[in-house]
Amino acid sequence: MNNFSHLDKDGRIKMVDISRKNRTLREAVAAGKITMKRETISAVLAQELPKGNVITTAQVAGIQAAKQTTGLIPLCHPLSIDWVDVRISSEGDGFMIEARVKATDATGVEMEALTAVAVAALTLYDMCKAVDKTMQIGGIRLIRKSGGKTGK
Amino acid sequence: MNNFSHLDKDGRIKMVDISRKNRTLREAVAAGKITMKRETISAVLAQELPKGNVITTAQVAGIQAAKQTTGLIPLCHPLSIDWVDVRISSEGDGFMIEARVKATDATGVEMEALTAVAVAALTLYDMCKAVDKTMQIGGIRLIRKSGGKTGK
Amino acid sequence: MNNFSHLDKDGRIKMVDISRKNRTLREAVAAGKITMKRETISAVLAQELPKGNVITTAQVAGIQAAKQTTGLIPLCHPLSIDWVDVRISSEGDGFMIEARVKATDATGVEMEALTAVAVAALTLYDMCKAVDKTMQIGGIRLIRKSGGKTGK
Amino acid sequence: MNNFSHLDKDGRIKMVDISRKNRTLREAVAAGKITMKRETISAVLAQELPKGNVITTAQVAGIQAAKQTTGLIPLCHPLSIDWVDVRISSEGDGFMIEARVKATDATGVEMEALTAVAVAALTLYDMCKAVDKTMQIGGIRLIRKSGGKTGK
Amino acid sequence: MNNFSHLDKDGRIKMVDISRKNRTLREAVAAGKITMKRETISAVLAQELPKGNVITTAQVAGIQAAKQTTGLIPLCHPLSIDWVDVRISSEGDGFMIEARVKATDATGVEMEALTAVAVAALTLYDMCKAVDKTMQIGGIRLIRKSGGKTGK
Amino acid sequence: MNNFSHLDKDGRIKMVDISRKNRTLREAVAAGKITMKRETISAVLAQELPKGNVITTAQVAGIQAAKQTTGLIPLCHPLSIDWVDVRISSEGDGFMIEARVKATDATGVEMEALTAVAVAALTLYDMCKAVDKTMQIGGIRLIRKSGGKTGK
Repeated sequence: MNNFSHLDKDGRIKMVDISRKNRTLREAVAAGKITMKRETISAVLAQELPKGNVITTAQVAGIQAAKQTTGLIPLCHPLSIDWVDVRISSEGDGFMIEARVKATDATGVEMEALTAVAVAALTLYDMCKAVDKTMQIGGIRLIRKSGGKTGK
Repeated sequence: MNNFSHLDKDGRIKMVDISRKNRTLREAVAAGKITMKRETISAVLAQELPKGNVITTAQVAGIQAAKQTTGLIPLCHPLSIDWVDVRISSEGDGFMIEARVKATDATGVEMEALTAVAVAALTLYDMCKAVDKTMQIGGIRLIRKSGGKTGK
Repeated sequence: MNNFSHLDKDGRIKMVDISRKNRTLREAVAAGKITMKRETISAVLAQELPKGNVITTAQVAGIQAAKQTTGLIPLCHPLSIDWVDVRISSEGDGFMIEARVKATDATGVEMEALTAVAVAALTLYDMCKAVDKTMQIGGIRLIRKSGGKTGK
Repeated sequence: MNNFSHLDKDGRIKMVDISRKNRTLREAVAAGKITMKRETISAVLAQELPKGNVITTAQVAGIQAAKQTTGLIPLCHPLSIDWVDVRISSEGDGFMIEARVKATDATGVEMEALTAVAVAALTLYDMCKAVDKTMQIGGIRLIRKSGGKTGK
Repeated sequence: MNNFSHLDKDGRIKMVDISRKNRTLREAVAAGKITMKRETISAVLAQELPKGNVITTAQVAGIQAAKQTTGLIPLCHPLSIDWVDVRISSEGDGFMIEARVKATDATGVEMEALTAVAVAALTLYDMCKAVDKTMQIGGIRLIRKSGGKTGK
Repeated sequence: MNNFSHLDKDGRIKMVDISRKNRTLREAVAAGKITMKRETISAVLAQELPKGNVITTAQVAGIQAAKQTTGLIPLCHPLSIDWVDVRISSEGDGFMIEARVKATDATGVEMEALTAVAVAALTLYDMCKAVDKTMQIGGIRLIRKSGGKTGK
């Protein structure tokens, strides 16, 4: 099992060479959750009903982060991103975040979707941290991807 | 409980005004975990013993991300960061990531520490995703902070 | 009148040396306007009443841009920004944008305030351009500043 | 008139999905003006004749900003920019700025052209603000665009 | 010899318009060297054998810099980078750095390869400067390029 | 000689903790050279006499790069930069680049000065590469620094 894609046979780090891969439509969906106190959830939602601001700010941050993935994750390629969608909804003891990303490019977009989820969650954390010291971010994972062979 | 620090009384988003707060030494420690298959952990460690490259790349990414926090999280202030430390160690079914950040500034550094953890975890994910489709990132939380009154 | 602050006596571009200036609280307020069709204003407001999203997205973009001013305007210093506030309100034939910025630093923050206004206006433009081809951005100017001697 | 391209039917912000649009040559031209005192214009031009520095610095900043548009305007796509041209010429009571942008991509480049104009104008402002407190930036608008159906 | 590609006939700066050039595979190789004291080289290598950290950090920095070239060099186009490879090896009185970059795009990637070399060398400098005040970076040059006609 | 400032005793990379160092005025001067064909030098200078554009563009790029050093060099701290000055002059078989940087901060600015030199040189390379395939960048080194004890 020595097929780590970013390590050559000497262990030196390296990017995957995608110059011979086809540019096709790739899509990935990732999700994650931020848990918080019941009253924090209510406060976010109460604000959200008339203004939507906490949620919208986190959506904006998630979308922006997806577009910056190549600057954050060292071996990610710059990709021609066609679409980023970040959905945030209350669920039980917190908020569920789901990000979908599409690109017409030669490698998959799972890192972009995962990065959008992580940064949207961090933004929710930042905006609620004055009233809640119990928050935790978890369950960040790939839900599905399509395009390419196995995505990357 | 209408003291959301980033929302004024009309719900409009806003930054916290820190112009009257003292610049003092602030510190924050955050942690998180990425779970993966046992053979992936072994492979990372086997590479790591002689080369350290997967781990080092994730450390570099986490440190760089801490310094970029203000560009990622919309309402975070640019801070005068004195130190970022990212530690990654295998633990049971994955790798534990711990980030410590210090700054001499007028607001806390918990978002910088949490961002370092999240991006280091995403980098581990990226470097292992060719061999493991089961990874998940979780448990991202503040461990402790000091400085200021309650940190921010 | 050869006191252009960014040009030395040979015309070579240069930053102002602020190393001997005191770090004091500086504040600047800038404003600007985007004009649009009456039905576009109504549509923004109708969306805005329940959701606030066009306005909130532009506020986020303006705040983020203020923090990136040094990366956009070549001779601006990186500043220790304490606060950015972006307000957007409908007014006659468009939306008025006002940005206030505070920093405890050795030079003024008028460029940060002006940049926040410009980018918030561009974001409004971007979000309305599918329904309105008549928009125009204007009146971008400094309203007032304080701190330092004359601000910079 | 509920066809705001960046808002879905629930008002949530979203990027336009361009994955099914053709990559064709797109071009956009935008313009704007900065007004200033007559003696400031003369001083810029006097410096400019032998050195060109104020003007050149603003051109550089405008070109760089066009390439950063996706990082500034939240719902803009990263685009494959083929060309950015920024022209600055004195005209009456100020300087006229015109930016032309070309890209071979699936969406239009008007935001890139408008952003180049705005940032070039802000740079002129920054470089002249020590000698002129009366400046104002206005008339930022799309002059024309081509490619795609209506450009985006 | 008035064919400077970035200057039009009036001397105004400008980007090369690549909208009519074909997107083909381009490759460039650049190299450079950092010289240092013999004991510094040994110390890097001694650290490197078990840990590889100085070298790996410089590789990461070089790869990241290649992807940021368009943000650093004003008239460079954003490119669709397929691969960046940075190799660092001890050689005589220092370390040799070689960077290879591939892109499927309408212009060459020599600036990306040269930027990767320069930033990897600066990172080596930064990590060794506490123990060596004699270092110098030189010999940064293009080794070869292919694709397009003459590459750009 | 195991006092590499960025490596702890296990070889893990780390930033230097500057939280207990005093913020004092630091200054650094760095230099470097780009060699080119005699006719290229003449062409740059001929353009430069009336327009100054190649030189000015490289100065702008060098100044901007100094401000971005923390984003490029992984273990560099974000610094409160007071001044960046980039001078470019023809000298024999090329152009000499000298950068001076001042900051009132807790660590030295030599990396900022070296980065400004490297990026200004790369920009000169980029703007001349259509007419000269012989260029080479070298001699990048610290000339002097002051402030702190030994600067960092």
